[in-house]
Amino acid sequence: MSETIEVISNTQERLNSIAYYLNAGAFVRVRKMLLDLPASDVALLLESSPAKTRQELWQLLDADFHGDVLEELSEDVRNGIISKMVPSSVVDALEDMDTDDLAETLSTLPEDVLQSVLASMDAQDRMRAEKALSYGEDTAGFIMNTDTITVRSDVSIDVVLRYLRLKTELPENTDTLYVVNRRDVLLGTVSLSRLLTAHPDVNVDEIMDDESEAINVDTPESDVAQMFERYNWLSAPVVDNDYNLVGRITIDDVVDIIREDAEHSMMSMAGLDDEEDTFAPVGQSTKRRSVWLGVNLITALLAAAVSDLFETTLSQLAVLAILNTIVPSMGGVAGNQTLTLVIRGMALGHVSPSNSLWLVRKELAIGFFNGLIWSVLIASVIAIWKQDYALGGVIAFAMMMNMIAAGLSGATLPIIMKKLKIDPALAGSVILTTITDVVGIFAFLGTATIFLID
Amino acid sequence: MSETIEVISNTQERLNSIAYYLNAGAFVRVRKMLLDLPASDVALLLESSPAKTRQELWQLLDADFHGDVLEELSEDVRNGIISKMVPSSVVDALEDMDTDDLAETLSTLPEDVLQSVLASMDAQDRMRAEKALSYGEDTAGFIMNTDTITVRSDVSIDVVLRYLRLKTELPENTDTLYVVNRRDVLLGTVSLSRLLTAHPDVNVDEIMDDESEAINVDTPESDVAQMFERYNWLSAPVVDNDYNLVGRITIDDVVDIIREDAEHSMMSMAGLDDEEDTFAPVGQSTKRRSVWLGVNLITALLAAAVSDLFETTLSQLAVLAILNTIVPSMGGVAGNQTLTLVIRGMALGHVSPSNSLWLVRKELAIGFFNGLIWSVLIASVIAIWKQDYALGGVIAFAMMMNMIAAGLSGATLPIIMKKLKIDPALAGSVILTTITDVVGIFAFLGTATIFLID
Repeated sequence: MSETIEVISNTQERLNSIAYYLNAGAFVRVRKMLLDLPASDVALLLESSPAKTRQELWQLLDADFHGDVLEELSEDVRNGIISKMVPSSVVDALEDMDTDDLAETLSTLPEDVLQSVLASMDAQDRMRAEKALSYGEDTAGFIMNTDTITVRSDVSIDVVLRYLRLKTELPENTDTLYVVNRRDVLLGTVSLSRLLTAHPDVNVDEIMDDESEAINVDTPESDVAQMFERYNWLSAPVVDNDYNLVGRITIDDVVDIIREDAEHSMMSMAGLDDEEDTFAPVGQSTKRRSVWLGVNLITALLAAAVSDLFETTLSQLAVLAILNTIVPSMGGVAGNQTLTLVIRGMALGHVSPSNSLWLVRKELAIGFFNGLIWSVLIASVIAIWKQDYALGGVIAFAMMMNMIAAGLSGATLPIIMKKLKIDPALAGSVILTTITDVVGIFAFLGTATIFLID
Repeated sequence: MSETIEVISNTQERLNSIAYYLNAGAFVRVRKMLLDLPASDVALLLESSPAKTRQELWQLLDADFHGDVLEELSEDVRNGIISKMVPSSVVDALEDMDTDDLAETLSTLPEDVLQSVLASMDAQDRMRAEKALSYGEDTAGFIMNTDTITVRSDVSIDVVLRYLRLKTELPENTDTLYVVNRRDVLLGTVSLSRLLTAHPDVNVDEIMDDESEAINVDTPESDVAQMFERYNWLSAPVVDNDYNLVGRITIDDVVDIIREDAEHSMMSMAGLDDEEDTFAPVGQSTKRRSVWLGVNLITALLAAAVSDLFETTLSQLAVLAILNTIVPSMGGVAGNQTLTLVIRGMALGHVSPSNSLWLVRKELAIGFFNGLIWSVLIASVIAIWKQDYALGGVIAFAMMMNMIAAGLSGATLPIIMKKLKIDPALAGSVILTTITDVVGIFAFLGTATIFLID
């Protein structure tokens, strides 16, 4: 057995040398090297390559290998590749995919491609595909596998063991057998380890666990992920509304969802699409990011419009123009800290109606203390730098106001947005920054106009 | 079996009603309700409660239950609770913890608490604890469990099966047996499902997998997580440098690491500690967040100092003061989009020396096109709003410069910082914003001074 320390570094090295030989045009060699890589590493290689290189690599890749690699690829990259394949070879690639991967792959295809792919499938595969697609996207039914092993409750362990020996191998990641009655209703589960420690003569119903939970086929995948994470499941049975066993979900499928859920907030807060492909063509990326920049331009103009109200003040005291950015910037950072924390708290299921009021009060208090600390500091800095105590007082007051506004809006915005079914991660930070900008400028230039202009 | 749909909503409801009865002071009732909750839900309840409520709940919780709940709690919350417990009861709570949870719990304790806890342990437990702590934090040895089941290669499956039946149950999440020689050197693995499908008469060495990889005990936990994610492992053996089997890592321990790794960037980019507890006391939170605000104040003052260089210009043209924030703000957003994407690409292992140059070029191109789009737009807006074409031209030029600077620094900063072994997520966005602020102000006020002031 090889040590993974090597394995890891090897992977990086191998990928680099493949990239090297590809540039050198040593295609035969690259083809050979690709054969030695596990599908997941080939996927990593493709995801780490620009579109052009991806196509070359894909051509060099053994076709029998296409399916396994497609399973591992992220949505964007996969679509980019499939869109350039002929339907028939897409079908070949999808042939022996697990149901869950099949569903996911097909669902992300552009409608026209999907249709032509379905069209060129044979009847049985098409039925399987359409069944898989019939479950709502991002539901348990969508990410489940259908290859469950079921047993009856009234047979002996010995019978079960002999039954299993008839199979050459069990489905991938099988850790549990499912006990069902004649109508396929789920009665309980028997873990393989329980099976191995049980006496051969006892019956299944004596050792089966009828307490464990089943996931309804319509449960949203993020709820599924939360349950796996919270209860440390390795796998779970999936049932329909009549409690018939329809499949099983294994943790390896859930891990990706857990990562995506966790990454979602970061990506959205930066105005990026979760699936955004780091190596997408320039045009595509520019287009995707422009929405956010557009929104930001509007808010920036809004802030400018606020300053515009104080044009006369600004023209009389240029120093105000110089310091005008400090208070909004501090408010923005403080507000985003609160916002991020609350959004994460929601994602982890920590923030609920029963404690949100407490949370808002807490962040308001933090805002107040932040205000105290930073207004004293900024006031002293300005007093020293500009030798102007009145100016120091004005900016200190503005800082105080804005820090309180930041804490309050940072805590309330996500709670309100969630009530309105808007994703806080997506629009939260823009709205927040707009608030802190406007309040900051108003407070600073407003008080300045009152106290410093005569 | 109960459906998890109910389960989920039930959990939320239960937690809310517990909170309600706690406020109502119905302690007996709360104590009863707590008994019906799984440890993970109690942990969720504690993490969702302010410090004061946490203590009350902890008091009401059955002591036999303390250990299971501590395992599930996040670092900050756990320390908060343990710090208020007497060492002896901490020891009782840690008594029957798995090695990995024990190590994690102890390692996060303040030194003095740790010592008194170790002191009040009996010899055997102390040895176990010190052994667990001997592995570097955040390494494979630290997160592994030691309860492996090992078999010899020359025995028959039938013997193995009878051996397993002697045990009342296998260790939690056992899905693989490990084949070792007399000196405990790992020779291979046998999955339970393979064991069940094999013929009783064949020997272990005929069905064992000697290809699969072992994790070295010193491998960083984030590498371990990446491997589990990339290769869809459910468990993996852990070996020391002599290739002796020392333990096993199961995916349920890795899932938490995967989430933390994924969350790390978002939290750091907002200047928050990964472990920051949403319901920590005001003082603690204020202190933790002030570092970041302090750094930001310095950069904000730096930006102000740049504007200060153009005081005369600003005093002559107040409109410049009004528009001064637009270009920096746009640059900041564009730069942070690039930064976030590159940081995520690094976390996923997509960004490597072989492709970083390509990536920088791409982001530079995007910066250029962003520049074109938004400079044209802002120029037209200003031309219409302020009826001043020269001013429009000046701001357009500044926008162009800053968008290019944003793309360039957004892509290069994380790559450089990684080379310097600085966490890009932590300091990246501050440095970036400073750059886009300074460049933006310089370009805008500089060109304005040249072309608009006579």
